[in-house]
Amino acid sequence: MVDILHRVGIDAPPRDVYNALATLDGLAAWWTNDTTGETGIGSVIHFQFGDRGFFDMKVLELDPGKRVVWEVVKGPGDWIGTRVIWDLRPYEKGTTILFKHQGWREPVEFMHHCSTKWATFLMSLKAMLETGRGSTFPNDVRISIDAD
Amino acid sequence: MVDILHRVGIDAPPRDVYNALATLDGLAAWWTNDTTGETGIGSVIHFQFGDRGFFDMKVLELDPGKRVVWEVVKGPGDWIGTRVIWDLRPYEKGTTILFKHQGWREPVEFMHHCSTKWATFLMSLKAMLETGRGSTFPNDVRISIDAD
Repeated sequence: MVDILHRVGIDAPPRDVYNALATLDGLAAWWTNDTTGETGIGSVIHFQFGDRGFFDMKVLELDPGKRVVWEVVKGPGDWIGTRVIWDLRPYEKGTTILFKHQGWREPVEFMHHCSTKWATFLMSLKAMLETGRGSTFPNDVRISIDAD
Repeated sequence: MVDILHRVGIDAPPRDVYNALATLDGLAAWWTNDTTGETGIGSVIHFQFGDRGFFDMKVLELDPGKRVVWEVVKGPGDWIGTRVIWDLRPYEKGTTILFKHQGWREPVEFMHHCSTKWATFLMSLKAMLETGRGSTFPNDVRISIDAD
């Protein structure tokens, strides 16, 4: 099992970062504008990226201001059963996010892509909270020669 | 042992991407402007990031247009002995880079930070080759609340 790891520091309090991870409006402001479903524990959030694909995340843990955990229940085969873990920690007047996309079975090439793509979406989350404007799908940062 | 993985696609031929990894001028245009040393196999390249720190990389492999491998010989303790591996592959008129920072002993918090930071420097490399302008230290992308 291998994991994607990231860390960013955001100049916004943990409460605001948590809301960006635990509400549909918050999520739609930095990841994909087509975010639907329910956000309570045990519910499934649907993240649609046009015709590029989608992820369905079951909410496993919600600890306000501290931690959010999702499990991927539908989406690309490599993602099924993996977990996305957000740990928030206060830092001065802001927040440090420790991010982990845990439980990839193999370090496939798609995992390399997703690692870089997560970094750009974490920077989108940071920008959204600090400046009011993220790089949300379909206006996300292109990391490849093709559309994504 | 755990690894940082990334993938980016760059609209520039493998020859140009290779030159950005295998020459001092190329490296200084996307990573840190203070890049010194020698770039031949067995030589050491010194990457200085002002008072934030430095990395000394011994060049282990150079396969023009295809692959570059470095071993960290001096720098942060967590980096010593790790390897940075760049595999280049032609894609249409451009290049796909598979990047690996291999051999971390533990998934320490600093590894999370470095994973995100590598992504921003890979995007700097991409921008430098596609637009002529990277986000080179000291004008690199800030991913934390503090300077780095």
